[in-house]
Amino acid sequence: MRKVTFGGANSLDNFFARPDGGMDWLMWSDEAGALMNDFWTNVDCVLMGRKTFEVAVKGGNAGESPGISSYVFSRTLSPGRHATGATVITTDPAAFVRDLKQQPGKDICVMGGGELARALFEGGVIDEIGFNIHPVLLGAGVPLFHHMSRQINLELIEARPFKNGCVYVLYRVKH
Amino acid sequence: MRKVTFGGANSLDNFFARPDGGMDWLMWSDEAGALMNDFWTNVDCVLMGRKTFEVAVKGGNAGESPGISSYVFSRTLSPGRHATGATVITTDPAAFVRDLKQQPGKDICVMGGGELARALFEGGVIDEIGFNIHPVLLGAGVPLFHHMSRQINLELIEARPFKNGCVYVLYRVKH
Repeated sequence: MRKVTFGGANSLDNFFARPDGGMDWLMWSDEAGALMNDFWTNVDCVLMGRKTFEVAVKGGNAGESPGISSYVFSRTLSPGRHATGATVITTDPAAFVRDLKQQPGKDICVMGGGELARALFEGGVIDEIGFNIHPVLLGAGVPLFHHMSRQINLELIEARPFKNGCVYVLYRVKH
Repeated sequence: MRKVTFGGANSLDNFFARPDGGMDWLMWSDEAGALMNDFWTNVDCVLMGRKTFEVAVKGGNAGESPGISSYVFSRTLSPGRHATGATVITTDPAAFVRDLKQQPGKDICVMGGGELARALFEGGVIDEIGFNIHPVLLGAGVPLFHHMSRQINLELIEARPFKNGCVYVLYRVKH
């Protein structure tokens, strides 16, 4: 079955972006680059919420990359294929992803702030969490984790400090 | 000058306790115990907010431990020595701690949820952050970090995975 990973970068105070969506605080490194390359080799599907999609569209990178399908979950956009190449889904996210995991394909990545992730955690369809914790307290921003109706237990797979002070952590979700 | 550390344990979604103050999710280990022993050897002063103090009083451990002074910051309690042995401070926390750091003594530990820590971060008096990140998303609880008026840059000193899946991270605050 396809593995679903909630992944990206966060601040130590668990923001995914500044209040305006700004990502200028991200620290790039060869170590993070190598890890990302490995990760994307195994992924052919990206899931995001409508807000992350809109930020991505503004940034000019919300289209269909070669070999990658994008699904955007929204209560307000029209369902179906969007001009950017992404497909808008307006039905229950967890049910959609549960079905998607059964289909043939590579692994699936959940991107962006935590509203979509909350629905997918509560629906029990996320298998891994992988974050590059940055050495900064942003103080304000878009939260990575939102309040949830239940506790999610994790198993640490890896914790790897980078030379630039980031710490990459990878967890398996205990179902 | 005495070093001020904001430290303790947190969940991956950055809660310090359950909504009711519950800490039943904490995982004890020999590794964490050895680290705590080392830490407390160098500390003779504990700072906490009123809410953490009240939880500690209920738990029966808010008194003065041998060799440790406790200060509780509050806008509602009466200032001065409390029956438990702690001293209640009602003046500006950052100014008080700035003065305390100049006095002779061992290092200082800021405990508890993040309301006091926010005031001390904003006042620039916290020198280190040391947390044992637990492999769990609690989903709800007492937040460790609150919104702040400015960004705080950190330098990673150490990231150490424990056998039980906790990851201990220690940062120096860049002043």
